[in-house]
Amino acid sequence: MTELNIIKIGGNIIDDSAALQQFVQDFAAISGPKILVHGGGKLATQLAEQLQIPQTMIDGRRVTDAESLKIVTMVYAGYINKSIVAQLQAVGCNAVGLSGVDGNLIQAHKRVHPTIDYGFVGDIDSVNTKLLQQLINTEQVIVVAPITHNKTGQLLNTNADTLAQAIAVSLANLYKVNLVFCFEKPGVLTNAEDDSSVVPILAPGLYANLKATGKVYAGMLPKLDNAFAALQSNVHKVIIGDAKELQQLIKGTAGTTIIHE
Amino acid sequence: MTELNIIKIGGNIIDDSAALQQFVQDFAAISGPKILVHGGGKLATQLAEQLQIPQTMIDGRRVTDAESLKIVTMVYAGYINKSIVAQLQAVGCNAVGLSGVDGNLIQAHKRVHPTIDYGFVGDIDSVNTKLLQQLINTEQVIVVAPITHNKTGQLLNTNADTLAQAIAVSLANLYKVNLVFCFEKPGVLTNAEDDSSVVPILAPGLYANLKATGKVYAGMLPKLDNAFAALQSNVHKVIIGDAKELQQLIKGTAGTTIIHE
Repeated sequence: MTELNIIKIGGNIIDDSAALQQFVQDFAAISGPKILVHGGGKLATQLAEQLQIPQTMIDGRRVTDAESLKIVTMVYAGYINKSIVAQLQAVGCNAVGLSGVDGNLIQAHKRVHPTIDYGFVGDIDSVNTKLLQQLINTEQVIVVAPITHNKTGQLLNTNADTLAQAIAVSLANLYKVNLVFCFEKPGVLTNAEDDSSVVPILAPGLYANLKATGKVYAGMLPKLDNAFAALQSNVHKVIIGDAKELQQLIKGTAGTTIIHE
Repeated sequence: MTELNIIKIGGNIIDDSAALQQFVQDFAAISGPKILVHGGGKLATQLAEQLQIPQTMIDGRRVTDAESLKIVTMVYAGYINKSIVAQLQAVGCNAVGLSGVDGNLIQAHKRVHPTIDYGFVGDIDSVNTKLLQQLINTEQVIVVAPITHNKTGQLLNTNADTLAQAIAVSLANLYKVNLVFCFEKPGVLTNAEDDSSVVPILAPGLYANLKATGKVYAGMLPKLDNAFAALQSNVHKVIIGDAKELQQLIKGTAGTTIIHE
């Protein structure tokens, strides 16, 4: 099976022009098909502040009222997506920026929750794998903004980690998929204060052990539970680390590689 | 040759939800391949006002400083583009929203002018007709936002009328192209105060005559000069009229159809 790398980055990287330039070069240098999924929460929060639209976050998820939806659509699908694509084009990488709306790439529904109204937050129903395959076959590199829709005209705001994972799972039976989550830390740490305490390989046994001894930062638990779930759905490898080390993350010489066993 | 309809609308239509819904249905009902190009100047101006970023217009063109470029990218390529695509998907039209950046669809250069610095305004160098053909062949309907790039990483703001025309000209030898410009008026009027004074067919002879007798509103002259230039470049027909009458514009029963002779 052909190897396919799916990389998720935070939107913050595009506000640091040196970091973005480096990342773009590293990403473009990855051989074979690849997909980039980006967030952009910090820039959306900044714009909301400038426009004096109060934002409510519950467990890291933005409660998305109509005005906030407009903001995230502008920031994610507009400014961040097109800035990244322009940079990739500049280094000869034939990138195409899409949101979940385009070609019905990601269909979702408005979140149903017994007590909290998250507003226009979308939980994913389906991924258009045919469109992704078609783009991969014509050697186009897809850059995905985490805006989805419900197929009846409503835009929705979907978590970018979840979206990257849904794309990875949808392609896991067609490609050997490596799913790489980039964040501010160099990997899964056994000591949150010590960046050199990276766990290089994380298998279920060690994970259970680290959880039992309280050695994994609580904020990492949902990310890691999701990573193991992705492996259960035939994703080949999940890698967690710092975007600055993208090349090494893919080679397995930096970050944390999460494996079946 | 296959008929291809290229429709340009102003961004104002998306702020009028009833008008947008009607337009989307009419557009989706057009048979055969079609491309939609949209502007969005009014919404960009509103957002700039809210963010207190002063805007300068020279002859209807926005002087685009770095902050204004961010605004137009967010509004055109983000909010307007994705809102239209979501509405089209809702009526079963398989739309994909792109900017000129995506797949290097429209490459441009920063405008060079002897006395005025327009900032990040892009004049078009090339259109990726291969990408357009590929999308048309797979029955995808392209919705284009007028944000372009210079292929070295710089986003640029390009006039949507000019962009629609460049796409039309680039495809004129491959398809029988109808280029439809929608605006607030029902067509070219001989009396700007009287909406019933539409010129149904405008050929070069009549145009020369109307110009000589001062019967065409001065603001229309550049639009019409461009329309005749498009015909010179093998575009089949240029039609000017009101988006509310899209079906009739294409049939030739409303608006002004501009022809070679």
